[in-house]
Amino acid sequence: MIKTDMIIVGAGPTGLFTVFEAGLLKLKCHLIDALPQPGGQCSEIYPKKPIYDIPGFPEVLAGDLVSNLMEQIKAFEPGFTLGERAETIDKQEDGSFIVTTNKGTKHHAPVVVIAGGLGSFEPRKPPIPNIIDFEDKGVAYMIKEPEVYRDKKVVIAGGGDSALDWAIFLADVASEVSLVHRRQEFRGALDSVEKVEELSKIGKIKLVTNAEIVDLKGEEDLEAVVIRHKDTALGEEIKETDYFIPLFGLSPKLGPIGDWGLEIEKNAIKVDNTYDYQTNIPGVYAVGDVNTYPGKLKLILCGFHEAAIMCQSAYQRIFPDKKYVMKYTTVSGVNGFDGSRKEAKKEVVKSIN
Amino acid sequence: MIKTDMIIVGAGPTGLFTVFEAGLLKLKCHLIDALPQPGGQCSEIYPKKPIYDIPGFPEVLAGDLVSNLMEQIKAFEPGFTLGERAETIDKQEDGSFIVTTNKGTKHHAPVVVIAGGLGSFEPRKPPIPNIIDFEDKGVAYMIKEPEVYRDKKVVIAGGGDSALDWAIFLADVASEVSLVHRRQEFRGALDSVEKVEELSKIGKIKLVTNAEIVDLKGEEDLEAVVIRHKDTALGEEIKETDYFIPLFGLSPKLGPIGDWGLEIEKNAIKVDNTYDYQTNIPGVYAVGDVNTYPGKLKLILCGFHEAAIMCQSAYQRIFPDKKYVMKYTTVSGVNGFDGSRKEAKKEVVKSIN
Repeated sequence: MIKTDMIIVGAGPTGLFTVFEAGLLKLKCHLIDALPQPGGQCSEIYPKKPIYDIPGFPEVLAGDLVSNLMEQIKAFEPGFTLGERAETIDKQEDGSFIVTTNKGTKHHAPVVVIAGGLGSFEPRKPPIPNIIDFEDKGVAYMIKEPEVYRDKKVVIAGGGDSALDWAIFLADVASEVSLVHRRQEFRGALDSVEKVEELSKIGKIKLVTNAEIVDLKGEEDLEAVVIRHKDTALGEEIKETDYFIPLFGLSPKLGPIGDWGLEIEKNAIKVDNTYDYQTNIPGVYAVGDVNTYPGKLKLILCGFHEAAIMCQSAYQRIFPDKKYVMKYTTVSGVNGFDGSRKEAKKEVVKSIN
Repeated sequence: MIKTDMIIVGAGPTGLFTVFEAGLLKLKCHLIDALPQPGGQCSEIYPKKPIYDIPGFPEVLAGDLVSNLMEQIKAFEPGFTLGERAETIDKQEDGSFIVTTNKGTKHHAPVVVIAGGLGSFEPRKPPIPNIIDFEDKGVAYMIKEPEVYRDKKVVIAGGGDSALDWAIFLADVASEVSLVHRRQEFRGALDSVEKVEELSKIGKIKLVTNAEIVDLKGEEDLEAVVIRHKDTALGEEIKETDYFIPLFGLSPKLGPIGDWGLEIEKNAIKVDNTYDYQTNIPGVYAVGDVNTYPGKLKLILCGFHEAAIMCQSAYQRIFPDKKYVMKYTTVSGVNGFDGSRKEAKKEVVKSIN
């Protein structure tokens, strides 16, 4: 059982910044995210794209914003349960909560903060009837640990940035990379498309276009995929492989959180924006794109504000008898849980003779 | 008469970011600030101090945050009325407003946004009975245009960072700089104190400690100051000068805005945080440290959020018949009023043969 002050469901920018605001109040946080790395959409969907509306950044790449936030919260030593989806919430007699993931990891805290963005990003699965039989037995919908594929045969399917980028990356890791796409045209960053073209020419990526995977073969684990060519003259071929990775994008789903007894409106969680972004379950807050209230804007900068306000309320819930007096970081500095301290250079008082 | 879509009273970080959010909605802004430069407290009080709680910046100097914001809003070409204090607001028959400054500059717009921080920073004046007679005739409480002092004799009074920094700066501009301080000890950044010490040794700053200015002389314009030494053996001396600049710090005052008919609570303006941060006067909004509502946190990041939300409501007020659909800058880019365009590199669709 992981014990902490605040369980944060969702490790996107809002969830990450919540760690900082909580840290200033000396509250420890543990984040749960279905994706294999922190950053949410910013890391998974558009890490190389610029955002123009983060205050103080005329332009910042989504991936860099996440790196900056990770650096900003480092001193508050957040815990992470990654690659697992928060599945159930159980209120305890003392008013605290246990949140359990789909892999059974349990987290216990007096406060739960849902910073789930548009929901957990579920991979779009290709319509192959027996694909479920091979999940975690050779079929993977996202790549968590590239080393798994070292010196293995890998078939990737897809025609977008993810498929292109992972085919390029694994070309140096796997013993054989095949990239199967149902069209001839790829949609992605120009340099990625060109790199795949180049690797294909020198035989480091086996490019199979105008084709799709229609069946999977294997006794227990995956052993081969069946590729069907559009060109009926080519027909079907069986290709031996250790892994099949369809990368057809992710689609957000509120997921199991939808069954937590929270008041839901338009696929978002209703919160009290008049005070503290708390949900209808006392002790459970929702911040960032996952929540809704009159006039809500789904902007990252709004999630930051909601997190700051929400942490004050969480503090009161955890320490009902203490009065927290807000201090400015410029004046009081930042004390990390790791013993680090940041502070402005102090003025000196110096006599001039 | 300056005409615009939104008059923003206060050019601190929140006021500046309001220009950006308004600009995304194609609304033009004009800012009024009593200080001679944009940035509010961040520029005037602590430009060289780090802030640690701006999301995405593990550390940012207050002055750099302002520079970044100025860069971020540049394409939306905000207007500025600086060094003038917003004095009166007059509602017009059509529901629009005219805001007039203490210097008589008039601004006309359908929406007024008060982003006044802790109020306008009024200089602390030394208790010299006839100082008012020489204001703008040789006495200045802040330095707006250093070139005014070129080849002139200047007496600065004070013992803090402002007095130190301006004495250093003007040592290369004025024909003579005297720094008068009632103590021997200066309170400021170590390098500033050391620099003044050095300039004093080589005669570029005339340092007069344990002394204060007690009287001013002059027919019409200032001609001399009377310096009284603590050491009674030294008594009083008359020092000829063109300018006297007492730099005894600034203290924030809500000022004339307090008489605009707004609902005030604890020296702050009450706003509707349940929807759009509007005040009790429809069409007048208040964002950032100047406003108050249940749970209010006086943090820069909260001002950013309030500005974003507030602009949506202002848009509805200005264009009651239009429906604005929020677009993400990452997806839709940013179109400047200066014809500039920022956008994410587009994906390509490219065929690989």
